[in-house]
Amino acid sequence: MRVDRERLDRALNPKTVVVVGDAKARNNRWLRSNKTVEASGNLYSVQVDPNELPEIEALGVENFSSLADVPGDIDYVLVAVPRNVAPLIMRHCIEREVAGAAFFTSGFAETDTDEGRELQATLKTAAEESGLVVIGPNCMGLYNPAAGVRFGPSQPAGFDGPVSFVSQSGAHAMDFIMGAHDAGVRIGKAVSFGNGITLENADYLEYFAGDPGTEFLTMYVEGLQDGRRFFDELRKATRVKPVVLWKGGRSSDGSRATRSHTASLAGSTEVWNALCRQAGAIQADSLTEAVDILKTLTLVPPFTGTGVGVMGGSGGQSVSMTDAFGDHGLAVPELTEPSLAQLGEWFSLVGASFRNPIDMGTNRTELEQILGILDQDENIDVISMQLRPRPKDDPEREQLDEPVAALAAANARSSKPHIVLLHSPTPMAHGEAMHDLDQELQALGIAAYPSYDRAARALSKVSAYYRWRAEVDAGE
Amino acid sequence: MRVDRERLDRALNPKTVVVVGDAKARNNRWLRSNKTVEASGNLYSVQVDPNELPEIEALGVENFSSLADVPGDIDYVLVAVPRNVAPLIMRHCIEREVAGAAFFTSGFAETDTDEGRELQATLKTAAEESGLVVIGPNCMGLYNPAAGVRFGPSQPAGFDGPVSFVSQSGAHAMDFIMGAHDAGVRIGKAVSFGNGITLENADYLEYFAGDPGTEFLTMYVEGLQDGRRFFDELRKATRVKPVVLWKGGRSSDGSRATRSHTASLAGSTEVWNALCRQAGAIQADSLTEAVDILKTLTLVPPFTGTGVGVMGGSGGQSVSMTDAFGDHGLAVPELTEPSLAQLGEWFSLVGASFRNPIDMGTNRTELEQILGILDQDENIDVISMQLRPRPKDDPEREQLDEPVAALAAANARSSKPHIVLLHSPTPMAHGEAMHDLDQELQALGIAAYPSYDRAARALSKVSAYYRWRAEVDAGE
Repeated sequence: MRVDRERLDRALNPKTVVVVGDAKARNNRWLRSNKTVEASGNLYSVQVDPNELPEIEALGVENFSSLADVPGDIDYVLVAVPRNVAPLIMRHCIEREVAGAAFFTSGFAETDTDEGRELQATLKTAAEESGLVVIGPNCMGLYNPAAGVRFGPSQPAGFDGPVSFVSQSGAHAMDFIMGAHDAGVRIGKAVSFGNGITLENADYLEYFAGDPGTEFLTMYVEGLQDGRRFFDELRKATRVKPVVLWKGGRSSDGSRATRSHTASLAGSTEVWNALCRQAGAIQADSLTEAVDILKTLTLVPPFTGTGVGVMGGSGGQSVSMTDAFGDHGLAVPELTEPSLAQLGEWFSLVGASFRNPIDMGTNRTELEQILGILDQDENIDVISMQLRPRPKDDPEREQLDEPVAALAAANARSSKPHIVLLHSPTPMAHGEAMHDLDQELQALGIAAYPSYDRAARALSKVSAYYRWRAEVDAGE
Repeated sequence: MRVDRERLDRALNPKTVVVVGDAKARNNRWLRSNKTVEASGNLYSVQVDPNELPEIEALGVENFSSLADVPGDIDYVLVAVPRNVAPLIMRHCIEREVAGAAFFTSGFAETDTDEGRELQATLKTAAEESGLVVIGPNCMGLYNPAAGVRFGPSQPAGFDGPVSFVSQSGAHAMDFIMGAHDAGVRIGKAVSFGNGITLENADYLEYFAGDPGTEFLTMYVEGLQDGRRFFDELRKATRVKPVVLWKGGRSSDGSRATRSHTASLAGSTEVWNALCRQAGAIQADSLTEAVDILKTLTLVPPFTGTGVGVMGGSGGQSVSMTDAFGDHGLAVPELTEPSLAQLGEWFSLVGASFRNPIDMGTNRTELEQILGILDQDENIDVISMQLRPRPKDDPEREQLDEPVAALAAANARSSKPHIVLLHSPTPMAHGEAMHDLDQELQALGIAAYPSYDRAARALSKVSAYYRWRAEVDAGE
């Protein structure tokens, strides 16, 4: 790594956090976000403008006129000053031997101006000579909910989690944290590193691959400063833990967009895809897909097969679920003869099929038997059930209780993953009902997906990763 | 066509509707669904079981013991009797010279039994000899909201619409009607035809291609009885109106699923795709995508270009919007020099780009100017804006009023399509807010999409259709 691992450890798990330059024009976003630090550590402010002091005082945060005056060791500094003041604050951080400093300040190389590039070079040189861990500039910095470090005042805090997220985009880091949390994915650490002058993707990859608290790593990558090193680190990381890579700037237009965002050169998508495939990374095309994959990784037990047992739909829905799994390289195989013989004894829904997919219609009486048969069937690796979320005032809502209970019992009993396909013809209008059922299933340890397609994509990619890993393990 | 077009006209626009065999075990679904017929026509019941009569009476529907007793001409009969009684009811329909009869009754060829196949053959022979228009069996029949004909008691009614939907699946027909309506797509007629013994896909395609009330046709197709004829009709239809085809049974597993659903043989997906492409059909892979495409067709003015102007995001979001459009064959081109010169005069958001995508962040003051510049820019064919829906209790909710108003004004002024990308990191939790904003935009004539990917897919496919049509028109 280009910096001291222990300094980055300290910055990511800070006891003392200082916000430099927070302002009421931003509604004191940085102090408000980091008030949660005080549950287990210290939060201080540095601000020299007397007009800004009343709000800081009102927030109950002790203010100093310089970093030099802040008491004790400083683990993490969030810098939100005008860009021309940034070099001065960096000098102060170096003098105080701060472990890490994140620069929210923007206006550097990403502006594509000489002035911006020169200012960034000044920061970079100073940081490199000192060993200061610099996050950014042009970033949101660090998130650690257990330590109370946040970059948004509505971000969740007060827990640890197995997922680390590294992002070249602050907006995506904000959205991923909210989206993942709502999906039941617990993030323990996140980094928004923007222009990345001392640490970039390869560094964070190396760091989190070696971080025992990180079981799953996800990265939003716009470009690489050292592609060879990144893929070397990637090949090592994927052998130890799943690495989800979400690439920004895939088309030539997208690549141009990344240049004006974080001054990144996106490179060829074909080369990127080939290297990711070889390295066993799991690729996501969007924030939504990245969250779906993480939900699968964290909620669904590892599996390597491709055979999906499909139940819970009626005719056309069964066909469409099968199509979705097929579109993404999974199979909906016919059940084995012993299963068909068992089902044939009592399956009696006229016009419905039980060869897989198993048409259920509204006939849910035999649910436990069917789940048991799928659990025994050697053609089946994953068991999926369609459920239709019902609004709170829907008289048919309680019809969901039985299948949810049966599924939870089967999931607890079985070594095979059980997943749910949430189906509504009007998913936005039924958003609350979808959300309620999803949360209920999360609490039962069951991953649910709001469309057939999203389930199929995520399951297929996660299964492919574990297959790849089993092959690698077998070969070593 | 294999039947008289005027008979199908009468069945689809009935004055007198009769439900045969409705039962309290189904909660009198068919009579309750078709009560809306009485607003402009007659609804009658035929039921011989005295145990069923009190509920029918309570619904205020006149009951007869036989079709023979029903007064006047009968345009449409919905048959919901046990399968062994179906041939008798069909005979009665023929004797009464009913225009069309839909058989909800199932248990025919789709069961893959000799008994089912023989019963279906009996029905088919009788129907063909008589000229009776038979919809089904194993189907939900007809939907015409203006005539009040429905197959579900919560289906919307009381309006006409430019979209016709033909489906081999009853469940998909149910869901499509609800999903399309919520998306602002007005369906004037829908047919669920199941096993299709007298009329199948080619017939409905021919009929609706020639129906002046149908401006847009969508079909869920599991299999074709006569592929050559279907594609002959398709080539004719697409020259007159957009035809959206959603194919069920794409994989070998999916094809097996269609056999047990509607006894359809799905055929090769590669051949299907090639023939659709040649014929200029718009292909959809799912119900969601079919609705997105219809929303685009009905709300967005026709366009043939691929250049998208992207505004409303910040850094990483702008990159991701660009990636999504690029993934689906659209471009996010740099603006022309005159546009860049105009924007450069006052665009001042530090670290943001305006070359397209145009980073907005929270800086929305110059919205009208930017919309005006994009309208003039010859590289731009479609103007897209990201908006973040806000829940009702969000204090920042009113921040949406200004961009929505600016967009509506620009859309009314401009000949270029304006669309919205609804963005939320937690779309299920924000379902109601997403839905509210979508409905507000629909009322303003603006299509909104709940993800970048879905917008890109739908716009790309619709643009490709109008390009294809322009080429065909130019060549003729």
